[in-house]
Amino acid sequence: MMAPPRRPPAARASAAPRALVFDVFGTCVDWRGSIIREGRALNAARGWDIDWEGLVDAWRGAYQPNMHKVRTGELPWTNLDALHLMALKALLPRFLRGTPRRAVGADDLARINTMWHRLRAWPDAVRGLKRLKARHVIGSMSNGNVALLTNMAKFAGLPWDLVFSAEWVRHYKPDRETYLSAPRFLALKPAEVMLVAAHKSDLDGAKKAGLMTCFVPRPLEFGRARLASAGYDAAFEPRFDYNARDFNDLADQLGC
Amino acid sequence: MMAPPRRPPAARASAAPRALVFDVFGTCVDWRGSIIREGRALNAARGWDIDWEGLVDAWRGAYQPNMHKVRTGELPWTNLDALHLMALKALLPRFLRGTPRRAVGADDLARINTMWHRLRAWPDAVRGLKRLKARHVIGSMSNGNVALLTNMAKFAGLPWDLVFSAEWVRHYKPDRETYLSAPRFLALKPAEVMLVAAHKSDLDGAKKAGLMTCFVPRPLEFGRARLASAGYDAAFEPRFDYNARDFNDLADQLGC
Repeated sequence: MMAPPRRPPAARASAAPRALVFDVFGTCVDWRGSIIREGRALNAARGWDIDWEGLVDAWRGAYQPNMHKVRTGELPWTNLDALHLMALKALLPRFLRGTPRRAVGADDLARINTMWHRLRAWPDAVRGLKRLKARHVIGSMSNGNVALLTNMAKFAGLPWDLVFSAEWVRHYKPDRETYLSAPRFLALKPAEVMLVAAHKSDLDGAKKAGLMTCFVPRPLEFGRARLASAGYDAAFEPRFDYNARDFNDLADQLGC
Repeated sequence: MMAPPRRPPAARASAAPRALVFDVFGTCVDWRGSIIREGRALNAARGWDIDWEGLVDAWRGAYQPNMHKVRTGELPWTNLDALHLMALKALLPRFLRGTPRRAVGADDLARINTMWHRLRAWPDAVRGLKRLKARHVIGSMSNGNVALLTNMAKFAGLPWDLVFSAEWVRHYKPDRETYLSAPRFLALKPAEVMLVAAHKSDLDGAKKAGLMTCFVPRPLEFGRARLASAGYDAAFEPRFDYNARDFNDLADQLGC
């Protein structure tokens, strides 16, 4: 199970940010649980036997390597829907089990690929975001493309003021350009914008670009089995401006 | 006064759009009334005598010529806040009346310039947008820059799913690239996206780019005196897919 935080939330030494931007996959939404759930329903409806747990883990595993190819120029700019589809086509045959490949048509692939548009928010996320929105500009800050993030926000009820996407600037996190797009387009200083994320490497990228940072642990992102076998580093870190148990705790700390 | 529409709303011959994007200045918000109101309050607070009616009309008059300079390459890409500030500095001296120029400092200029971030919605706009949002993706489609549109949406309560701005693509309407940015980033066909606007030339630009169109007359955009002297072409036009008296009428027509 999740270890209790090893440090209390940082005292509010830092000024409050003007705008908050959020990593989305894992930080706002439960991508793994959502895809397994929709996949199993699709198995039942279509008589398929696809191994959704195996597929979603392999699919997410292709995420960083494929974005890396774009970051290094090995691939031209390719948005996340297209990277997802490329990976899905390559990976699906390994997870079909008894399902014949021909049973999954092009329309099915498109439908499976847009499962990433229909992810469910973590239980605290929508209420926390609404509280934070009352006093701050809130936006996504995601490698997801604009259509994906827009559709997901409607599906999950994420009440963004605006969508920041790697696609607007054609740079994937952790490229500096992506983080800096939020202050640049909001006409704020980097230090007036805070990234909220469940991934410390993402926060370190934002910090290097001059943004404020807030860590929110999401120990169940990769599922209970992974948590039990590999654990999860939920430790609050003094190098981040804020550490919060969830979005409501962050709203409390910011006085929202 | 406003003439009654000369044609009834178009019958619903057109399919319903998937996404609706809205011209903002004049279509969603009353820029003229809002700036005069904030300006007069500032006159009272600071003991100024600035002619806000004259200033706002001249300021808006500089809008198209300045964007034209960007469109033709006479100016490099310059966002609307910067174009507004350039025009304000040039125009203000003509409208100071008894106010000494030195009474208006750099901070005052910045504050006056961001009056465009604090515009009030037309009375039907927020309720109509909320109704439309329940069934459609809704976004701005404006020459305003991202910070301006984001701040205005929070100030006026415009509940965008996402902000489309000329600034994302560095093209001002009526450049085709601006209209096409909405379907492109939403992964929709142009014909699945509808521009809603009070300006027929804007709608004609969108139509030429393949978008659906909806005209909503806003006869008071330029004030009652202009309406009395010059009239306003509120005629519904069969060349547009929809014509609506206001945003609630559009929501009715779309079954929202």
